[in-house]
Amino acid sequence: MKKRGLLIVVSGFAGSGKGTLMKRLTGDYDNYALSVSMTTRKPRPGEVHGREYFFVTKEEFEQKIQDDGLIEYAVYVENYYGTPRAYVEEQMAKGKNVVLEIEIQGALKVKERFPEAVLIFVLPPSVKELYRRLKERGTEAEDVIEKRMHRAEKEADTIDRYDYIMINDEVEESVKRLHSLIEAAHFTPGRNEEFIRGIKDDLRTLWKGDH
Amino acid sequence: MKKRGLLIVVSGFAGSGKGTLMKRLTGDYDNYALSVSMTTRKPRPGEVHGREYFFVTKEEFEQKIQDDGLIEYAVYVENYYGTPRAYVEEQMAKGKNVVLEIEIQGALKVKERFPEAVLIFVLPPSVKELYRRLKERGTEAEDVIEKRMHRAEKEADTIDRYDYIMINDEVEESVKRLHSLIEAAHFTPGRNEEFIRGIKDDLRTLWKGDH
Repeated sequence: MKKRGLLIVVSGFAGSGKGTLMKRLTGDYDNYALSVSMTTRKPRPGEVHGREYFFVTKEEFEQKIQDDGLIEYAVYVENYYGTPRAYVEEQMAKGKNVVLEIEIQGALKVKERFPEAVLIFVLPPSVKELYRRLKERGTEAEDVIEKRMHRAEKEADTIDRYDYIMINDEVEESVKRLHSLIEAAHFTPGRNEEFIRGIKDDLRTLWKGDH
Repeated sequence: MKKRGLLIVVSGFAGSGKGTLMKRLTGDYDNYALSVSMTTRKPRPGEVHGREYFFVTKEEFEQKIQDDGLIEYAVYVENYYGTPRAYVEEQMAKGKNVVLEIEIQGALKVKERFPEAVLIFVLPPSVKELYRRLKERGTEAEDVIEKRMHRAEKEADTIDRYDYIMINDEVEESVKRLHSLIEAAHFTPGRNEEFIRGIKDDLRTLWKGDH
């Protein structure tokens, strides 16, 4: 029997390195698929439809909402962002773990709707290191960095609602650790209801019959 | 900083193979210690004080209870059985994961008192296989096997209260999987309160100071 994949929801502070981690995870192991979000915002130079995002019109997006075709969606700076359901379900049925890299509010909404989703919060090894990484990007003015740190401070309050934290110190090690976290998550009772129900049923009936 | 070990509580049906699994786990990896229970029952031929059990008198056991020297204890067929606290704490402080192989009632008591304990329920791949294993032991009469199956039926109702299930199909694979389950369990928010508190504090204060 093919093991069904899990829905893996990854969030983390800007500068936590979660993007790199996700690219490596989905590249290094073949049982992952990265979900591509749908948005109504215009593509930026270099962005490709179906790679960075599925770029659609407001009308198309609202139709998707009506059809219950999105796992979650949100409005951000007057644009819609959402996770198309079809791709996610298709990949999970194939046994792939589908990775959603989304904002905290979206992540918590997904968990409400899919309690078996695995929520992972990526953290830097320290706040000093977080600051250093934001600074190193070089493109950000000091006031932008300050904003991000403030935002991280608020986001930190939701860490307890995630299933796992992932301390992203060294990429090679972190990718391996992340993979084994996700493998382990397959073995909670809540993610094996069918198997457990089978064992219970058989304990009631099967062994009393033909051995 | 030395990572503190975890309290690992393992339960499972008679015939699930949990004993073998625990011996292999604590033998194959060096970051485990197997807790030895204390009991007032008499040693059986071949049993060694400090290996199978710490054999003590009723008075000694009751003194231990009074001194809060046991993590959990129970009475079974007029004898006391319990888990001495000192050894467990000492090993965990050294970074060892301490494995308790105990009954379900004891396991749930431990979880109440130590919410950060990792509860693992070992299951056979199928009920047919469970029956086959009990039969294969050869020492058990059919009515004893029947009793065990009945007991398993009741025990199955508590599976949902465990953190993980462990399907014990093939020992080599199962031991590895068990180890990686336990490694993963280190990374829940509840088992990293200190680290998370540190990050939160630093986000409030540190980065605003000296960079």
